[in-house]
Amino acid sequence: MYADTRSSADQLYLAKFGVPDAFISIKKGAKRIGVFSQLEFSRALKDSAFDDVLSLEDWTVRARKAFRKSDIGPPEVIATLAKAYRIGGFKVPADFPAWLAFQLIELGLPIDAVRGSIFPVRETKTEAELGFLREGNRCSAAGIRAAEETLRVASIRKGYLYLDGKRLTSERLREAIEIACLAAGSIPMDTIAAGGDQACDPHCAGSGPLRANELIIVDVFPRVAKTGYHGDMTRTFLKGRPSDAQSALVAAVRGAHKQAIAQVRTGVNGKTIHTSVQKYFEARNYPTTRDEKGARGFFHGTGHGLGLEVHEAPRISTVNCRLKRNAVVTIEPGLYYPGLGGCRVEDVVAVQDDGPKKLSAYHYRWVID
Amino acid sequence: MYADTRSSADQLYLAKFGVPDAFISIKKGAKRIGVFSQLEFSRALKDSAFDDVLSLEDWTVRARKAFRKSDIGPPEVIATLAKAYRIGGFKVPADFPAWLAFQLIELGLPIDAVRGSIFPVRETKTEAELGFLREGNRCSAAGIRAAEETLRVASIRKGYLYLDGKRLTSERLREAIEIACLAAGSIPMDTIAAGGDQACDPHCAGSGPLRANELIIVDVFPRVAKTGYHGDMTRTFLKGRPSDAQSALVAAVRGAHKQAIAQVRTGVNGKTIHTSVQKYFEARNYPTTRDEKGARGFFHGTGHGLGLEVHEAPRISTVNCRLKRNAVVTIEPGLYYPGLGGCRVEDVVAVQDDGPKKLSAYHYRWVID
Repeated sequence: MYADTRSSADQLYLAKFGVPDAFISIKKGAKRIGVFSQLEFSRALKDSAFDDVLSLEDWTVRARKAFRKSDIGPPEVIATLAKAYRIGGFKVPADFPAWLAFQLIELGLPIDAVRGSIFPVRETKTEAELGFLREGNRCSAAGIRAAEETLRVASIRKGYLYLDGKRLTSERLREAIEIACLAAGSIPMDTIAAGGDQACDPHCAGSGPLRANELIIVDVFPRVAKTGYHGDMTRTFLKGRPSDAQSALVAAVRGAHKQAIAQVRTGVNGKTIHTSVQKYFEARNYPTTRDEKGARGFFHGTGHGLGLEVHEAPRISTVNCRLKRNAVVTIEPGLYYPGLGGCRVEDVVAVQDDGPKKLSAYHYRWVID
Repeated sequence: MYADTRSSADQLYLAKFGVPDAFISIKKGAKRIGVFSQLEFSRALKDSAFDDVLSLEDWTVRARKAFRKSDIGPPEVIATLAKAYRIGGFKVPADFPAWLAFQLIELGLPIDAVRGSIFPVRETKTEAELGFLREGNRCSAAGIRAAEETLRVASIRKGYLYLDGKRLTSERLREAIEIACLAAGSIPMDTIAAGGDQACDPHCAGSGPLRANELIIVDVFPRVAKTGYHGDMTRTFLKGRPSDAQSALVAAVRGAHKQAIAQVRTGVNGKTIHTSVQKYFEARNYPTTRDEKGARGFFHGTGHGLGLEVHEAPRISTVNCRLKRNAVVTIEPGLYYPGLGGCRVEDVVAVQDDGPKKLSAYHYRWVID
């Protein structure tokens, strides 16, 4: 690989320590080889999972000699390493840089790019990883709790929410959530705190004043600072009094959520779960429609794998995908109707032979007086 | 491109809005074409810079017909788009996914991967971008101020720092910094708050109790939530009383920092600045050495470009690199000697014809009683 550990989960999975700049890593059999500049070298010796920690400066000198030129980049260093380690070609992840792949091919090293992750084993989690994901969801829950508490102490004036004499905005609510995530030991990532019609765009982060009596979606997916694993939970709140239509919408989403979680077990097809959520909503008169402005109803997947990436394999969507033992997935049905509002409820479960094992915990009360 | 906007600065530069999952984008002449699933579609219509916002679902159907098969992925969708827009091949950034490049080549579309960013114009900033970077450094300064305040109110007992009756650790100091970054409107990224020998690894984030009379490096490089641009500032503090050797070390780093900033102007070679910092340290008896455990002295670059990425072009290092007008770079010399400690001072400047223009502001007092 040639990647940093922030944008490449495969690199982090191999290295087991964080590096902000791209570096070369090679796995030959069980041996892990990493090449680091002096800036990272001694940290790599102490903290990383590499068996051979090599100096980029030394290997650049070797590459200079081998190629008899001064302008040495990653292609020449990798080719020099390949010769020393008797490697005839590389299997790389889908997101391996195309420029580097072309250069290596020109240097006579065949490159075989796999479709997804180079470590498909990442899809099924070890006991330790299940613990890291539980910890991630503890951080998510801390953020959601902060949102609920903030809404609880807020007051209502002329239809708007107020806190400390000032309007409560999505931005202020998000700040409260993210401070709680930080305090719990995680780095918040693009947290969603969106009310009303804004929440009908499932990835709209939310901005401006929040209103009473509107559905507010809070979706919190921080990365645990120590391990790099994520939490991912969503709750929908309403400060004030819900209408019958809002209550029915929330009940439908909660019903679909419960039913979908109950279906999770080893061997089940993700598509089966997703289809049953679609049918559940249709049967209750929540249609999904689309026009040139966008979609309404239920128009995203039911869930996705969670680990070192917020979105990873497997998918619970329109695509066929058997759930493996110890895969970890979100279950997050939602309904979105501009005018009425949006609702999404999300938990994280591990796939087990005898059913789902929940890794996230937070109550489902949604109306805040 | 086929990337999300978090790991690809080029994609964010083109899209002008944040998308957490990879999506297809094409620039044909001045026209920006983006392909979005229903999950992002209406947000893309409202918030993005794309001229043509296309539906992934519609184009998947078109690709299914064109390829007469049901299993359609990004290669088939891109090939279908290429035909409709009469595009015969693509120029892609270095980090374009290799798997996708190989698939497109197989479908008859030549792929030309450039070495770095596909938008070299990102290296020189517009007035608006200079403002975003100033804002980023305002956020960095808020974090550094929080660190200084925390150290100020801390007390010293038996050589350790205490706050609210408990030991002050790197983790607690980092939390104070990151909360301040959040409150200022930015997302903290792997903030460094490391003391003593830990700080001698320039990328060590720091962990465990902080001590009195030791140098503590605080390096804060958050991303502004609204724009995606970064701040990047470093200060080194000491709580208690410095030794003569510590004072001399800090003075040397500050001297090198001042001298390097003064050299910044349009057309100067980054390597010239870097070499003069190396000479400055050597002349003052701060040698740089290396052994099998790592390096001591000054062993990283003097600076790097700052923008949508924390590290981007240009570099101020051992590599030849002319500074362009309105490039924005960090200047961050440092010295690291286990036993004595580490010191780094970092500011951000814009390159102008008549010299440097500072985009970061924070004082340089480093001893905290």
